[in-house]
Amino acid sequence: MQTWIPIPENSDFTIHNLPFGIFSMEGETPGAGVAIGDQILDLYAVADLEHLDIPGVDKSVFNHSSLNPFIRLGKRTTSAVRLKVQQLLSDEHSPLRSRPEVFIPQSSVTMHLPVEIGDYTDFYSSIEHATNVGMMFRDPANALLPNWRHLPVGYHGRSSSIVISGTPVRRPSGQVKPKEADQPVFQPSARLDFELETAFIIGRNTELGQSVSTAEAEDYIFGMVLFNDWSARDLQQWEYVPLGPFLGKNFASSISPWVVTLDALEPFRTEGPVQEPAVLPYLQYTGKKNYDIHLEVGLQPAAGDETVICRSNFKYMYWNMCQQLAHHTVNGCNIRIGDLMASGTISGKDPGSYGSMLELSWSGTKPIQLKDGSTRTFLQDGDTVRMRGWAEQGGVRVGFGAVEGRIVG
Amino acid sequence: MQTWIPIPENSDFTIHNLPFGIFSMEGETPGAGVAIGDQILDLYAVADLEHLDIPGVDKSVFNHSSLNPFIRLGKRTTSAVRLKVQQLLSDEHSPLRSRPEVFIPQSSVTMHLPVEIGDYTDFYSSIEHATNVGMMFRDPANALLPNWRHLPVGYHGRSSSIVISGTPVRRPSGQVKPKEADQPVFQPSARLDFELETAFIIGRNTELGQSVSTAEAEDYIFGMVLFNDWSARDLQQWEYVPLGPFLGKNFASSISPWVVTLDALEPFRTEGPVQEPAVLPYLQYTGKKNYDIHLEVGLQPAAGDETVICRSNFKYMYWNMCQQLAHHTVNGCNIRIGDLMASGTISGKDPGSYGSMLELSWSGTKPIQLKDGSTRTFLQDGDTVRMRGWAEQGGVRVGFGAVEGRIVG
Repeated sequence: MQTWIPIPENSDFTIHNLPFGIFSMEGETPGAGVAIGDQILDLYAVADLEHLDIPGVDKSVFNHSSLNPFIRLGKRTTSAVRLKVQQLLSDEHSPLRSRPEVFIPQSSVTMHLPVEIGDYTDFYSSIEHATNVGMMFRDPANALLPNWRHLPVGYHGRSSSIVISGTPVRRPSGQVKPKEADQPVFQPSARLDFELETAFIIGRNTELGQSVSTAEAEDYIFGMVLFNDWSARDLQQWEYVPLGPFLGKNFASSISPWVVTLDALEPFRTEGPVQEPAVLPYLQYTGKKNYDIHLEVGLQPAAGDETVICRSNFKYMYWNMCQQLAHHTVNGCNIRIGDLMASGTISGKDPGSYGSMLELSWSGTKPIQLKDGSTRTFLQDGDTVRMRGWAEQGGVRVGFGAVEGRIVG
Repeated sequence: MQTWIPIPENSDFTIHNLPFGIFSMEGETPGAGVAIGDQILDLYAVADLEHLDIPGVDKSVFNHSSLNPFIRLGKRTTSAVRLKVQQLLSDEHSPLRSRPEVFIPQSSVTMHLPVEIGDYTDFYSSIEHATNVGMMFRDPANALLPNWRHLPVGYHGRSSSIVISGTPVRRPSGQVKPKEADQPVFQPSARLDFELETAFIIGRNTELGQSVSTAEAEDYIFGMVLFNDWSARDLQQWEYVPLGPFLGKNFASSISPWVVTLDALEPFRTEGPVQEPAVLPYLQYTGKKNYDIHLEVGLQPAAGDETVICRSNFKYMYWNMCQQLAHHTVNGCNIRIGDLMASGTISGKDPGSYGSMLELSWSGTKPIQLKDGSTRTFLQDGDTVRMRGWAEQGGVRVGFGAVEGRIVG
């Protein structure tokens, strides 16, 4: 499929992608758009011109500060809107060819959180990451805890501090207990880290008491974003027993602005790792439920070029999104449109694929070399972390753009 | 102070209390009210009659499905509204005496969640509870983990499944690993429990990066409710390492409908326990920050009378609300109006004051005797758990009413 819009080489935002996001122009209120090349298609403007003639779609859903009202229309409708946009952008005789005002350069807008997030859950679904952390923090001989292969371990995180890509991240202070000390001290985190993750956005409500099976799960997932689960390892290590991470995580998490739909990711389905031992029936599934999505992390010092320090892939995930959602709801826990469910750090087998500095520097023992000659074990003030993700196959590319954030002291 | 409204004996809702809540009458939309005796004062109706002449208060804030817009007016204003209501209900010549239509019997309405809850945090701030749990689940000789006396341990919970008192609670199913087994099994929880807690509601936003000191904390707390943190102990025990409780908790939490303001609790301030060792400066505080609030739990079988099985007190809390909030925000984590922060189970020293069946039955080894001759270790289908809380001193009573829920299979 071709589009009459000029698409820069290696653009994530091809005619095959068409992700949804919330943008605003200076002095105007936010609204919904679709990314195409380095432009944004203004959905409210297109609907106002009566070119989005999908039954049940009132243009007001695009004139809103989040995608929640649009998502609420249901997947059949939102998929139809995406297909209509695809047609409008590929048809040689598209009415939009004479309407340059519906296209806005991405460089000229402010992006906002794409959804109003009710609850945010973080999973821990990469076996390589869980093993690495277990080796460093607990027992190298029994790195993986007994429950890990039986259920997708997850925990609740903080919604209020989820910020859009580009928001500076302030180095948190908190309690840290030096190994040799009897008492904790209060200080800025000295082990500030990123976690390379993706997250999926819930597209359909359930009632309390209702469960979603692995077979139904995709109907409840609207799309995906990149997610950086910033982590202060020293705060986390002291606080996390017995109830899990808290201040070591909730100072900020960053997400990418464009929500890539499962429709767009369809060509990139792939098998997940074999699960041994076999999982309980409610976690079993059929078909390809993983996706082949390249992930990478660049670290850019305050006055230097970016070095790519991690190359990973979403397909390494031991537990897939359908299993995560089936597990999350099997006890009747209800989900709401806009809820965010993050993957946990996505590491691969190769040390170059580890999705956090904790792993890349092996808890600070192996400094990471940067292009400018400097090294890092954890993040320094002024460092920018930039995560990218894209799927590509047979000339078709579908990407997420980037999620980035700079550390300020 | 007297009111011309008849107040039943031992009512929690005296002229000294005046808690805020959200109610609806059949076929009408929800709105804000104040509980007085066994009546509700309809705030929108009173404002519509122009009897709530407080600067900055538009009557529309009362015509809303949550208290959030009202709380957003700020504590100076919401306190002034409460004082105005107190005056209207105590003045012999009150204009409301000729307006019976602004009073609605509590028995005739449906109560709703009082606030739209963004994030929900649960603390773990009773030293007796943490010690009891540590003895049962971990090491009796080192029941309290090393961090416990240094910081108010807390974790993030699920907002979507917080329900109003009276909502039936479905017994969750999930993974359980029997002690003798190699593999987990999937089954309904056999160790379903309550947790006696209170929760405070955030009354003022902060920006990301901002901290709230212990001295400022009360300005950020609108009021308190009773909170039942239903827990499936068998699910929790298998899943909770290393990231904390998840499906063992997120199937439901119940709150009482009336938000008791800190203003109303002012006469009941009391000293908290001595904290040893001394806490870090950001957790230090001056003045009386605990409150003397009697708490009790009644358990009523499907076909029997209620037995009070726990009598505790909020004043036992080792960490007070100001310390909890200072800790929560010391890393810059932002808070939003309507956020809920729960205390954790409130147990006292005496076994009769333990705030959960896990502790009362000592992990199932000491059955709890009920009036009808039956015993319980954990909850059975059909059981109703009813928690009550009230402060009382010198003839002044300020109470929370109840939070209750019945277990359905």
